[in-house]
Amino acid sequence: MLGLLKPTDPAWVDAVKGNLEALLIDHAHCELKAAQSALSIVSRHGWDHPELAEPLLELAREETEHFRDVLKEARERGIRVPPPEPDKYVSALMKEAKRDGTPERRLLDRLLVSALIEARSCERFQLLAEGLDDPDLAAFYDRLMQSEARHYRLFTSLAEAIWGEEITRERFSVLAAREATVVDRLALGPTVHG
Amino acid sequence: MLGLLKPTDPAWVDAVKGNLEALLIDHAHCELKAAQSALSIVSRHGWDHPELAEPLLELAREETEHFRDVLKEARERGIRVPPPEPDKYVSALMKEAKRDGTPERRLLDRLLVSALIEARSCERFQLLAEGLDDPDLAAFYDRLMQSEARHYRLFTSLAEAIWGEEITRERFSVLAAREATVVDRLALGPTVHG
Repeated sequence: MLGLLKPTDPAWVDAVKGNLEALLIDHAHCELKAAQSALSIVSRHGWDHPELAEPLLELAREETEHFRDVLKEARERGIRVPPPEPDKYVSALMKEAKRDGTPERRLLDRLLVSALIEARSCERFQLLAEGLDDPDLAAFYDRLMQSEARHYRLFTSLAEAIWGEEITRERFSVLAAREATVVDRLALGPTVHG
Repeated sequence: MLGLLKPTDPAWVDAVKGNLEALLIDHAHCELKAAQSALSIVSRHGWDHPELAEPLLELAREETEHFRDVLKEARERGIRVPPPEPDKYVSALMKEAKRDGTPERRLLDRLLVSALIEARSCERFQLLAEGLDDPDLAAFYDRLMQSEARHYRLFTSLAEAIWGEEITRERFSVLAAREATVVDRLALGPTVHG
């Protein structure tokens, strides 16, 4: 699904159901980081690749909206969102990508790691849309799942527009294999990528 | 004006008129950094001060819009925007603020330094609105000048809501005095704060 090589263990949904508070807290952190990451790509690479600016600024706007939406869901359930802990999943992906990236490939890796994060979120939000007992929250994740799928396609198509289909696909499969290993190593917990 | 202790030398407008390209390039960088800074304050302090989140997310949205607007003005004039150089004005302000800031005061300083940057931009955009020969660009800076004034008030009122009027005013006057020194030290050039 969406280029992911390792499907999420269905037991993940049970871990989430047992701790919806932890899920919403982690999810809020993820949306804010996604907005910051989109702006950060523009601020580093948008000058040499001006075609990235418009779609990524629009993406940042959308991720900021989602962050507001998740904060609202948390607030309605009386949940206070504490500061984030370091995100093991994202740091592991970024570290792997940086290790062998030549400078000119760093942007390619950044876009494809972003695509993989969106793909994994999409897969998991679909599990939540189908598995959560709270109908409002299930509908919320169904809507977000569709956005994540769109963002996945956005990142892969931006990469393809710069490097072409072949190079993009080749590098994506290397990073997707690593993503599968990273996700497999993490303990199953009530967080978006944990 | 807006708490600034040192008015801008009117010769600044002439420096800008001689190099509108440099102004628009620097201005584009400023707007993107402002959007990133608003999100960064939320990501560091929005958890302990949830009342900051909504107004600063809205601010980030607005700064991102302004960044798009400036890119459009640049594009229409055939100007390519290169990556930013380090911003001497902002780094000097931040460094001064950090030097004696206890951790709990770091947020206060961050908000008040942001207020000062908005105030200085407001003052200078007014000079541009009144002094530029290009009527479209003059109108553009007139609109933005009003936003910067609003942002200045937003940052000071967020600080007052947390620390009260007296502490905020006292600290503001220390930082405003430093801003006047910093701005005075910089060579007059065709940039927003240079």
